[in-house]
Amino acid sequence: MLKNIFTIILFFAVSSFTAKAQDEDSVMIHRLSTEVLLNGKAYSNLYTLCKSVGQRLSGSAGMYKAEQWGLQALKEAGADNVYLQQCMVPHWVRGKKEFAGYKTKNHKNDTEYNVLALGNTVATGDKGISAEVVEVKNFDELEKRKNDVKGKIVFYNYPFNKTLLRGAYGDAVRYRVNGPSAAAKYGAVAVIVRSVTGAYDDYPHTGTMHYDESLPKIPAVAISTVGADKLSADIKGAYKNEKLFLQTNCEMLPDTIGHNVIGEIKGTEFPDEIITIGGHLDSWDPGEGASDDGTGIVKSIEIIRLFKTLGYHPKHTIRIVLFANEENGLRGGTKYAEEAKLKNEKHIMAMESDGGAEYPRGFVCGMTKGQFTKVQSWTKYFEHFDATKFVFSEGGGGGADIGPLQQAFKTAQFGFITTGQRYFDLHHSAADTFDKVSAQELNLCTAVMASMVYLVDKHGL
Amino acid sequence: MLKNIFTIILFFAVSSFTAKAQDEDSVMIHRLSTEVLLNGKAYSNLYTLCKSVGQRLSGSAGMYKAEQWGLQALKEAGADNVYLQQCMVPHWVRGKKEFAGYKTKNHKNDTEYNVLALGNTVATGDKGISAEVVEVKNFDELEKRKNDVKGKIVFYNYPFNKTLLRGAYGDAVRYRVNGPSAAAKYGAVAVIVRSVTGAYDDYPHTGTMHYDESLPKIPAVAISTVGADKLSADIKGAYKNEKLFLQTNCEMLPDTIGHNVIGEIKGTEFPDEIITIGGHLDSWDPGEGASDDGTGIVKSIEIIRLFKTLGYHPKHTIRIVLFANEENGLRGGTKYAEEAKLKNEKHIMAMESDGGAEYPRGFVCGMTKGQFTKVQSWTKYFEHFDATKFVFSEGGGGGADIGPLQQAFKTAQFGFITTGQRYFDLHHSAADTFDKVSAQELNLCTAVMASMVYLVDKHGL
Repeated sequence: MLKNIFTIILFFAVSSFTAKAQDEDSVMIHRLSTEVLLNGKAYSNLYTLCKSVGQRLSGSAGMYKAEQWGLQALKEAGADNVYLQQCMVPHWVRGKKEFAGYKTKNHKNDTEYNVLALGNTVATGDKGISAEVVEVKNFDELEKRKNDVKGKIVFYNYPFNKTLLRGAYGDAVRYRVNGPSAAAKYGAVAVIVRSVTGAYDDYPHTGTMHYDESLPKIPAVAISTVGADKLSADIKGAYKNEKLFLQTNCEMLPDTIGHNVIGEIKGTEFPDEIITIGGHLDSWDPGEGASDDGTGIVKSIEIIRLFKTLGYHPKHTIRIVLFANEENGLRGGTKYAEEAKLKNEKHIMAMESDGGAEYPRGFVCGMTKGQFTKVQSWTKYFEHFDATKFVFSEGGGGGADIGPLQQAFKTAQFGFITTGQRYFDLHHSAADTFDKVSAQELNLCTAVMASMVYLVDKHGL
Repeated sequence: MLKNIFTIILFFAVSSFTAKAQDEDSVMIHRLSTEVLLNGKAYSNLYTLCKSVGQRLSGSAGMYKAEQWGLQALKEAGADNVYLQQCMVPHWVRGKKEFAGYKTKNHKNDTEYNVLALGNTVATGDKGISAEVVEVKNFDELEKRKNDVKGKIVFYNYPFNKTLLRGAYGDAVRYRVNGPSAAAKYGAVAVIVRSVTGAYDDYPHTGTMHYDESLPKIPAVAISTVGADKLSADIKGAYKNEKLFLQTNCEMLPDTIGHNVIGEIKGTEFPDEIITIGGHLDSWDPGEGASDDGTGIVKSIEIIRLFKTLGYHPKHTIRIVLFANEENGLRGGTKYAEEAKLKNEKHIMAMESDGGAEYPRGFVCGMTKGQFTKVQSWTKYFEHFDATKFVFSEGGGGGADIGPLQQAFKTAQFGFITTGQRYFDLHHSAADTFDKVSAQELNLCTAVMASMVYLVDKHGL
């Protein structure tokens, strides 16, 4: 393309800074932005996390490596005080690779589907399960067919509704979370769930689920979207009325010791008033946890480096928290709030990023109307970034890890939001790798988060 | 991540449609959006273009294959009338691979840099050029060192200013476009330009340049950003005062026949009033031209399919144009406007997409104040997409290919804009491939473009 359209947009994009250059906050935000866009370290930190640590499921060797990586990264960013906060975490292990497919005498070739056991599920055991598959589109259809599923494998083939834009995950994830117990209620022996993703490929997407303790716990796996369409066709065609063989080898071991990894800059005026910023350190076991939630933690760590590099001395204590065990237990976020309560800490604001690092758009603002009015008055500082979407949410909603803090103290929350259309293509799958993250988008996200932290620190909420 | 944040965003995202369900335009835009997000064909069309045609530089065999692909794709989308519009195009060929490096007796190992000849440049010839390299950061430094460059290779090492967000390309591209003649003025024998990209990798990014006809034409290449940093270090260190060997083998052949590829739906009320929508069919020769500008043309073609599938009969004639030769001549866009003028056509609106298919944000609106006021009144229809950025631009600026139409008729223009932070990582390089495009973002872009075309067609401008 030629340059004329970009010349116009150049004019458009720089105007907000030049016009307000007198304003001290504009100057500081411009400095933050320039430093992160030209010299940002978040991308190289993410590379190290993905390539030298990789997966870091709670309780795994990767978790302990990640904790050491986090301590080192926070020290290098310049935190005054870096420490571990212990919490017990669940220790679920996948064991040897799952299998789902038809191994029958009637067919020359066996058929296999790409599946991953859902997090926290029980295993089929060595012998596996052989049973017919009953496909349902949703819970309504399960209700209608409740007499057909006894002794069968229920296959939830609920599509990710791409027309919802930012709501498709929340809409579809209930089949992964609650589907196994809903099927067990009617005597199903196992569950297969269509992966909760908009991507059409052969990667299964795992994720946590919850058993209803009053019902039998049955094995459950996610199947790739390509695999789901094939299975749906196969059970009506080539493998009609035949038994699928499913084997999973996972196990829930006793809880083990994990840690929140914490780094602080002590506040100059209000050292006892805390601003918490974070993401989660753990990840699911396929992939590298690059977007979920490597980006969240490297952006948070970078805020420390930015403040230190630019010589900004925050009034309040800035505490970066790399939360343990968000994915299958939320033990880190829970522990963090419990300790804060025990110590009678004062928490004035919490920010979480757990949705990747696509183009930044703003924040879900879980706070009072009055606080939100103040946040809205800062909109002008975010125009340059095109990140002015501030969504009021009275009941919290900033994120999972900072949720317990909100419940404990009614702490004002910022849940960082991006354009968010690529995140669920990768999420909880082997596709969640470093190469999917744009350095420039990651740095821009950091600039937006750091700017909001600066404004709250400077002016209060 | 868990679901609570997404539940809130779900509520936020769907509200605009449900609240305005009575409005006929909302209903139509919702139908367009649903069709493209669930059943869109743009992504599979892009796959075919990238993988079965690939590069399609003007005059190359790829250009002719692409024209045939375009005719077929427009027919399959349901265009009433599909045809070629002939225009002569430049026929520049790269020839055998370029070389830039040190081949000296003083070093055990030769050093090579990844370079690509700039489009339309002359070659060094078989013998190549051996000369010392003089590095300058910018044109000011060239002026200061004008007495040092005679007989030398000028190396413009001007960085892509990532802090400008949407303006970095317009800022840096002048060294690629005008650098060779500026150096030739002071007797330089060749030019090396740091690639105009924010990516830090080893892909050189080519692109067009313009010789000042009053000055000697000297060979010019782009060097990768990693290569540029290495070269900069090498000429101060290991290869100080040594001669770099540069060889390019490109050639400008006589103009050849190319075509704009056009598909129409005839207007029901105003068949003689034309709405032009398009992107360019040609690409540079490395990569697959996926984002530049494969996405622009598959989105445009998809608008025909959407209108046909949904039974929407436009009042005005909708004309999709896959423009020839945007990259190194603009002959297609020029020819299109000339023919329109000759035939005394009436052009009420033109829309161009030539900036990839990242998250859609809106349009540069090159039109009168009155027309812009009308466009702004439609903002509500774009809230659901979060694509409400309408930037007024009195002097046109909608895009290169529709520029001549604006000059001929003062036709109102829409230049489609996205978040646009990844585009120049890929642009004009071997990295511009299909796998970099998100299906969901591509479909959302199409929904936004189709919605604006629908509104202009329905209500006029």
